[in-house]
Amino acid sequence: MTPSQRTTRRVALLGFGTVGQSVARLLREMSSDELELSCIYNRDVGRKRSCAAARHVPSTAVWCETLDAVFATQPDVIVELMGGLDPAQDWIKQALGSGISVVTANKQVIASDGPELTALAQSSGVQLLYGAAVAGGVPVIPGLQQGLSGDRVMRLSGILNGTCNFILSRMEAGARYAEVLAEAQRLGYAESDPIADVSGLDARAKLCILCRVGMHTELDQQRIATQSIADIDAVDFAYARELGCTIRQVSRAQRQHNGGPEETVYARVAPMLVPTTSPLAWSHGTQNMVVATGLFGGDVVFSGHGAGGDATAVAVVSDLLAVAQGAQSVVLPAQPRSVSTDLIAPHYLRFVVNDKPGIVSAIAGALAKVGANIDSLLQRPGYPKQRLAFVVTTEPCLGSVINAAVSSIAAMDCMLERPLALEILTVDDKDEPTA
Amino acid sequence: MTPSQRTTRRVALLGFGTVGQSVARLLREMSSDELELSCIYNRDVGRKRSCAAARHVPSTAVWCETLDAVFATQPDVIVELMGGLDPAQDWIKQALGSGISVVTANKQVIASDGPELTALAQSSGVQLLYGAAVAGGVPVIPGLQQGLSGDRVMRLSGILNGTCNFILSRMEAGARYAEVLAEAQRLGYAESDPIADVSGLDARAKLCILCRVGMHTELDQQRIATQSIADIDAVDFAYARELGCTIRQVSRAQRQHNGGPEETVYARVAPMLVPTTSPLAWSHGTQNMVVATGLFGGDVVFSGHGAGGDATAVAVVSDLLAVAQGAQSVVLPAQPRSVSTDLIAPHYLRFVVNDKPGIVSAIAGALAKVGANIDSLLQRPGYPKQRLAFVVTTEPCLGSVINAAVSSIAAMDCMLERPLALEILTVDDKDEPTA
Repeated sequence: MTPSQRTTRRVALLGFGTVGQSVARLLREMSSDELELSCIYNRDVGRKRSCAAARHVPSTAVWCETLDAVFATQPDVIVELMGGLDPAQDWIKQALGSGISVVTANKQVIASDGPELTALAQSSGVQLLYGAAVAGGVPVIPGLQQGLSGDRVMRLSGILNGTCNFILSRMEAGARYAEVLAEAQRLGYAESDPIADVSGLDARAKLCILCRVGMHTELDQQRIATQSIADIDAVDFAYARELGCTIRQVSRAQRQHNGGPEETVYARVAPMLVPTTSPLAWSHGTQNMVVATGLFGGDVVFSGHGAGGDATAVAVVSDLLAVAQGAQSVVLPAQPRSVSTDLIAPHYLRFVVNDKPGIVSAIAGALAKVGANIDSLLQRPGYPKQRLAFVVTTEPCLGSVINAAVSSIAAMDCMLERPLALEILTVDDKDEPTA
Repeated sequence: MTPSQRTTRRVALLGFGTVGQSVARLLREMSSDELELSCIYNRDVGRKRSCAAARHVPSTAVWCETLDAVFATQPDVIVELMGGLDPAQDWIKQALGSGISVVTANKQVIASDGPELTALAQSSGVQLLYGAAVAGGVPVIPGLQQGLSGDRVMRLSGILNGTCNFILSRMEAGARYAEVLAEAQRLGYAESDPIADVSGLDARAKLCILCRVGMHTELDQQRIATQSIADIDAVDFAYARELGCTIRQVSRAQRQHNGGPEETVYARVAPMLVPTTSPLAWSHGTQNMVVATGLFGGDVVFSGHGAGGDATAVAVVSDLLAVAQGAQSVVLPAQPRSVSTDLIAPHYLRFVVNDKPGIVSAIAGALAKVGANIDSLLQRPGYPKQRLAFVVTTEPCLGSVINAAVSSIAAMDCMLERPLALEILTVDDKDEPTA
């Protein structure tokens, strides 16, 4: 589209919270003649209209509280920033069905209904863009869609939840879980109910979207296993350090039986041991990161601020410019793939026991019984014998095998807590590409 | 564009070297019905036709040695992988003028003629894409164009030359410049004449392209100062380590007087001291990296393999898919900006002297005379007095001030070499975005 064909697009903003207010500010500072903020929707809109950020909204914009009132302003594009499935899901559908383009940061809607909504947008001749739905201001979606469409992405590994990364990187520096969670809530990084973040459900939705965009595979979100970070203790960071690792909530997906009729995708969101030499260990605070491992191009890393109003607003405004210019990304069809929850990997097992003779032998026996080989046994000095935390690492074996062993070990009398089992990530990309 | 509207695009490949052969292989393995390799051009094409990689080329493809023969195959898109300005510059123009889209990895042509060629493509209704021209397989061009168009990029810092990064990261591990250059040449990373790489001219062309795409500024390439890495010695890595830094060839551009009528862009390619906490210090071997610092979104990092046939071919094939699907990126007009070569920064000064009393005093006097304050003075034990290497770091001051001091110090009798002056990068992005 040449500049002469462009017209000003009328933008309606649904949700005038932190991100919505940043979007209004960026649009004002950009003062693009391609985009005009013409409508703001919010519940209890009077309160929003009198907030400080309202000064970024043009005086010509309509403030309203119903979807009908939004539609009455005849927007060309709706920015959906309400979050959650209801009513966002339905409203996005209504907008697309009415020939209105949609830009959204809503990972839940896109994870669950992305293909259907994209098809609806295509049949209506409008656009659905969601660059802000994964990793906030990190342009991983355009990077994968446009820049890596020529590769075959075999594996995606990401730090996709800023709250968990904030908590774990503070714990790495010595803070305790409960304290740092409270701090994250005070700073506004964590919700008062942090379950979606710490349990991995938030990251799981984002992982689904990344698999669709980067691997061209469609996964059933409900089948992706998650593990909470809430069971990670300060002692785990101490042992991880001895192993040359730290601990991060990692979202990962990996093709198995590449391209064959039985191709599945191993997918999981869990706290994992990450070697300090891995890019995933570099992200601190609320940073997000995605490592895409291509069959041909090797590891490509995207990183930056995954949360915060301004960073997310950058992704939203970039998508608005794409709508205004009629810019289109490469789209490759996504194939449905079964989710595999079992992967061969080395594992970290942490036991908290009331120490007595024979425990190590019993654990070793339980591991041997399922065929898991012990790689190392670590016991730091200084723990009381009646509450002793020690660690066993295993050679690579199936996660299901480890789970079976953990269940039998958990039943031992001496175990004061259920043993903690974490996958240990291995770094296998080379510095130099293979020609 | 819906799939039903798509037709197969005929692809002509100009240059069947390492990258061209990888492109042929990727196209064969992808077996997309959108792209058909229909013509291979190379000098002495008979030799290429009988090489092992020729098996990736469809039997229907035409092998030829002239541009006329290429045009006779009626390609929809030409992939230019010959490199250099002549004849690539002219041939790209001829193709675009004839209504043929062009995908190129040619940084020199794009740095010097990008805007003119893009205008030609637009007027011919075809596309010119060059994702492979910067950072090989790292999708920094689509990431900046599409993902960060909503931000105002204030600074770009990059590791853009894989050869220099290979040399400097091996020197960091203890190797000597001459040895590692020879090794790089043996491995095929460095040309037999490595001047374009080590002098910074290769990276300078890439920096120009990044400034255009990411900062929307058009710079005069010739005005961007470069400094060779050839003067870096093992001793500099030892001193850098004491300062918590390593040394990398950094390409950087930074807006000065943001947005005002006097806005200029400081731009420079030089070996610099990089704090080990900076993402730029993470890239090893032939990896490339770009850090884009947005006014709103903060630091965004792109990294991966910047060289090698397969990584570069991924970028080429991704661009071919974009041509096939008529995908378009957001394009914001680039404004011409003057290049500023002077920036306030802390500096590292390394002197090699025949030691005698009064040298430090004389150096301190020369620095004081130009108004540069000494921040630290480092002298490692173990160097002979008649060839003593020691280091002074300064507080932030203008590079031109440092250069003036260096010129006067270089004239001192005791100086055995011209003093080495390097900029010290500072890390000023926060872990947490400011809301």
